[in-house]
Amino acid sequence: MKKNEFLDAKENALKSLKDACIKEEVDEGILPLLGLLNKLEGFYTSSSCAGRIVLLEIPQIGDKHNATFLGIWHRTIEVTELQAAATKATTGFLWLIAQAPILHIGAKNLELAERMIKTAISSGFKNSAVKSLGKKIIIEICSTERLDAPIGRDGCLFCEGKYLTLLTEISNEVIERSQKKMHRLVEKIGNFSDF
Amino acid sequence: MKKNEFLDAKENALKSLKDACIKEEVDEGILPLLGLLNKLEGFYTSSSCAGRIVLLEIPQIGDKHNATFLGIWHRTIEVTELQAAATKATTGFLWLIAQAPILHIGAKNLELAERMIKTAISSGFKNSAVKSLGKKIIIEICSTERLDAPIGRDGCLFCEGKYLTLLTEISNEVIERSQKKMHRLVEKIGNFSDF
Repeated sequence: MKKNEFLDAKENALKSLKDACIKEEVDEGILPLLGLLNKLEGFYTSSSCAGRIVLLEIPQIGDKHNATFLGIWHRTIEVTELQAAATKATTGFLWLIAQAPILHIGAKNLELAERMIKTAISSGFKNSAVKSLGKKIIIEICSTERLDAPIGRDGCLFCEGKYLTLLTEISNEVIERSQKKMHRLVEKIGNFSDF
Repeated sequence: MKKNEFLDAKENALKSLKDACIKEEVDEGILPLLGLLNKLEGFYTSSSCAGRIVLLEIPQIGDKHNATFLGIWHRTIEVTELQAAATKATTGFLWLIAQAPILHIGAKNLELAERMIKTAISSGFKNSAVKSLGKKIIIEICSTERLDAPIGRDGCLFCEGKYLTLLTEISNEVIERSQKKMHRLVEKIGNFSDF
């Protein structure tokens, strides 16, 4: 990527991030990491998520594009919050999903992209890879923990309190492990003054 | 990657694949695709899985390294097969997992790697990316469908027949959608005589 093209892309990305922050559309938990990454000369951050627990309803299996979000939490939750959100269900499948953080990062060149991927993998983000090699070099940083469980249909839960409590416990574990990995990555990137 | 290094890596990979085929360690469903890819001058296949449904037991949340596999199916299944495999459970969490295919492919250069990723994405494998940019260029081809659901603990299922039937139905859907995507990729690669 040419130097000017990278600088233009970085400038646009920083502007978009600033706008998103003003609209409170950015997960607070991920801001310190985004700040550190954007301070590095050879990188900028694009769309990112700090990890979340989601309750959604989909019309039919596989049709996640037409999902209705009944609950989104960027933190650990109580089973009562899940139960309350589930009362909003009407038709289709109810899925509980817990997702690890996902970050998209633009890199100035392939050498830097490779270093960032190695740093991410050594922090526990084992699913990190280069998503785009074209005009822009885009890295995706992601880890493997997740829960994707169908828990109800047409407004009714399939599972009782005990099972819902376990699902909540496991979802919270995904969030907690994600946060530890994110702290590890923040530390490693903070120490790389010459990244 | 230098030409000779690539040819050596390809030779080793083809030998490993041949050995694995003799030991019947390769999923049959993926062999036509591996054959096509290995016929292309600029690519070779490394570890690959045709997609599968797995029932496994893990000692505690997150400890998938110490998992015991109670059932592995590279095809759609009946709920009775799942129930039969679950009777082998003893201690820890029981997880039902349905995974889309995953292929690792070595590429001779970045240009070819990028073309292969675009072809994979347009066939429906939206999680495809470059996993390694080092001495060897390795692509991972993968899609997004999956199910990761805890379904029991310490030998007992949390869910009744009706819910297990739904989980089986969804797992089978992951396998069926995967197979369609794989056929699409086989067609696209078969048509790329000049890939």
